[in-house]
Amino acid sequence: MAEGGVIRTPSRGRSALLTDLYQLTMLKAYWEHGLHETAVFELFVRRLPPNRNFLLAAGLAHALDYLEGLRFQPDELEWLGGQPGFPPAFVDWLADLRFTGDVDAMPEGTVFFAEEPLLRVTAPLPQAQLVETRLISLLNYSSLIASKAIRFTLAAPTARLVDFGLRRAHGSEAGLLAARAAYLAGFDGTATALAGQRWGIPTFGTMGHSFVQAHDSEAEAFVRFARAHPENAVLLIDTYDTEAGASKVVEIAAGLRAEGIEIGAVRLDSGDLAAHARRVRRILDEGGCPGVRIFTSGSLDEHGVARLADVPVDGFGIGTALTVSADEPALDSVYKLQEYAGQPRRKRSEGKATWPGRKQVFRTCEHGRLARDVLGLEDEALSGEAMLVPVARAGVRLRSDPPLEEIRERVRASLETLPAELRGLESAPAPFPVEPSPGVRELTREVDHRSCGDDVGEGFAATGTPG
Amino acid sequence: MAEGGVIRTPSRGRSALLTDLYQLTMLKAYWEHGLHETAVFELFVRRLPPNRNFLLAAGLAHALDYLEGLRFQPDELEWLGGQPGFPPAFVDWLADLRFTGDVDAMPEGTVFFAEEPLLRVTAPLPQAQLVETRLISLLNYSSLIASKAIRFTLAAPTARLVDFGLRRAHGSEAGLLAARAAYLAGFDGTATALAGQRWGIPTFGTMGHSFVQAHDSEAEAFVRFARAHPENAVLLIDTYDTEAGASKVVEIAAGLRAEGIEIGAVRLDSGDLAAHARRVRRILDEGGCPGVRIFTSGSLDEHGVARLADVPVDGFGIGTALTVSADEPALDSVYKLQEYAGQPRRKRSEGKATWPGRKQVFRTCEHGRLARDVLGLEDEALSGEAMLVPVARAGVRLRSDPPLEEIRERVRASLETLPAELRGLESAPAPFPVEPSPGVRELTREVDHRSCGDDVGEGFAATGTPG
Repeated sequence: MAEGGVIRTPSRGRSALLTDLYQLTMLKAYWEHGLHETAVFELFVRRLPPNRNFLLAAGLAHALDYLEGLRFQPDELEWLGGQPGFPPAFVDWLADLRFTGDVDAMPEGTVFFAEEPLLRVTAPLPQAQLVETRLISLLNYSSLIASKAIRFTLAAPTARLVDFGLRRAHGSEAGLLAARAAYLAGFDGTATALAGQRWGIPTFGTMGHSFVQAHDSEAEAFVRFARAHPENAVLLIDTYDTEAGASKVVEIAAGLRAEGIEIGAVRLDSGDLAAHARRVRRILDEGGCPGVRIFTSGSLDEHGVARLADVPVDGFGIGTALTVSADEPALDSVYKLQEYAGQPRRKRSEGKATWPGRKQVFRTCEHGRLARDVLGLEDEALSGEAMLVPVARAGVRLRSDPPLEEIRERVRASLETLPAELRGLESAPAPFPVEPSPGVRELTREVDHRSCGDDVGEGFAATGTPG
Repeated sequence: MAEGGVIRTPSRGRSALLTDLYQLTMLKAYWEHGLHETAVFELFVRRLPPNRNFLLAAGLAHALDYLEGLRFQPDELEWLGGQPGFPPAFVDWLADLRFTGDVDAMPEGTVFFAEEPLLRVTAPLPQAQLVETRLISLLNYSSLIASKAIRFTLAAPTARLVDFGLRRAHGSEAGLLAARAAYLAGFDGTATALAGQRWGIPTFGTMGHSFVQAHDSEAEAFVRFARAHPENAVLLIDTYDTEAGASKVVEIAAGLRAEGIEIGAVRLDSGDLAAHARRVRRILDEGGCPGVRIFTSGSLDEHGVARLADVPVDGFGIGTALTVSADEPALDSVYKLQEYAGQPRRKRSEGKATWPGRKQVFRTCEHGRLARDVLGLEDEALSGEAMLVPVARAGVRLRSDPPLEEIRERVRASLETLPAELRGLESAPAPFPVEPSPGVRELTREVDHRSCGDDVGEGFAATGTPG
């Protein structure tokens, strides 16, 4: 398959070529000029999306896996050597490149806000540079989906929530990561079978319209499906007429019960879900099927779920709205150099300036509620809990990844501490306060003052070339 | 890494567990009841998103690769056998399952509209059912991105367009597929190195802010980068002050020229791009650098690109807006059973009813412009070009995937035939006409009439059980 379509998704998503070419053009220049001092990069979200009052960190386990496994494969090096600007000596040097740096990060399931580093990399400049693209990609997407998923759990705290999004996810990796991120945020499980196999996430399967359509009789389809899945049959009743479907469920229920089979639930997937659910509930109750639950799907976002709060619906299958985070399909995640060779650094681009130095987030709770975050320097003596913790040293994880249940528990505990105004689906009246510390402000002044000395002459002077 | 984070992205994205569990629960019931007659499923988009006048088909090469490689691996079967409802005999049957069906589809790069099948699968019911989720996923995402990308080419037909989106794409598969889909739609290339290696897509690399920040002097950073990449250095000039950066470029240009190095371009990434580009163009021109091109990036969507039409900008790096299709992050793609065991089928769910039978899209051009599409039956004698063509028979591709250049050429040719009102970025005054044929309408009436005979009693009667 020369130029055609085969997706050779790199084993474990760890290809070192999963990066922007500019990382490699920069590495070439770093290599040529010996820039391999220690760099400190921080990954953060510049701004919260308008429809989010807080974000939830996720994806760290994948990021660490990527860093530990980072290496160029022979075929990748061969390709690179064939591109302009990458001589054999540089390619040979890349062959030996590994990630040997330190990582500090917020554990998965931590609530965070704009400008707060989720992750800090401290490593020789070329290593820390190369990994930018993939680190952003992994933390950005999982955090995006966890931050969307938790809105559904806030909208329907007691309902069963299942990720139905694989088919509309942006590719298979997205579908898998979304299943995991949603589960971390409090979903009950996923329809994605592979996520069940990989991570032990509970999987849920119902039936599709095609099953009903493949039969001449809807009732026959129901009976056959229930017999094939006596453990928990969920019958899809909207293929032709939802209430007529519910009546058929009632009529077959007694016969199935005689065989020892209890129908688990019905699923509604179209039309006015509130109206249908109320009518179906009545049909089931009056027909002697009060134990048959009602599950709905069909293009619901968190607002749609919230609107069904008083409707007899026991669970929701959530697809597109979750898996592409439809109202906000991206976070403004960036990864910025904050220190190089012991010198704090910052960019001052319009609207995109950063705070320099190695930073820490100091979080203060009062009366069991989040009160404020301070963005301080790592070594600054500030009160509050330090949210970034050491997770890798010299390129190696400090502990194995926590079980998913531990992360789910962290999320539940974090939700307890969220102020009520952040917990709503609507925008909070004011953003949660995140203040740079005196140390950060002072360092910024120092860096700006120092860089006034920058002038064109240095460019050539430093490399010994006349200007 | 037991429960933790390792992404073992399945080799080639082809895992048979990349599916919704309900496909497997349905397969179990099909298997139990011997439903293995021929099924015909069609994949189509129910509605065009509000901001799209047409869509562009992409992803077929991946879909065919998936179908050809479909099989359950031993570890996948082992997992499935441990889930409730999947007995060993069923799991053994799955072990031998392969895709042996036929596929008809629109070639990649074909313009299409709502309700038009992109792809039709004709196969034994269990096979055709199982592949639903992954087929939607592959065609949905690549078509989504190709359909977004072409809007940028319409907005800036002569500018260089480069995909910068990997970091914000929803995972690595999305990033790779987006690079390819954008290239098919007319982009000049991508920053994603792996897309270059895999598919030979031209790759473009500039420099990042961190490269500038790692130096004490911006000018020194520029000189070093230009020396490392004399073949085509693109210098990022907005780290501190865009116009000051442009002046530094002018001041180092003569010295570099003396070394035989011509600076290729500068990149602007922040602030008012139009104002900066005009000022930078003047600084470069007046400084004797008329050959240094101006490349911009920085959160541009197609409208932002169109607004820069009269501004001296030679190229655009397009990130998030492209790679998550930010204004419309999903297509309403579905895959529906249209015939089973020789009988046409349809669903009649509210707002989601389908046209039954094996269908074909008959396209008519008049005076070199698309005039209308008719959604007809495959064997109906209708005028117009048949847009679905045979691409696989008995599970095997009929030809190797076309080179990407062939697809790009098809896109260019299709654009020529697009009526002017569909080519704008704004919504066309009326949707392009797609009409169901007399044959489709008649078949729908027949199916609806026949299914009136459906009643509950059949459910048990057909399986010999008293109701």
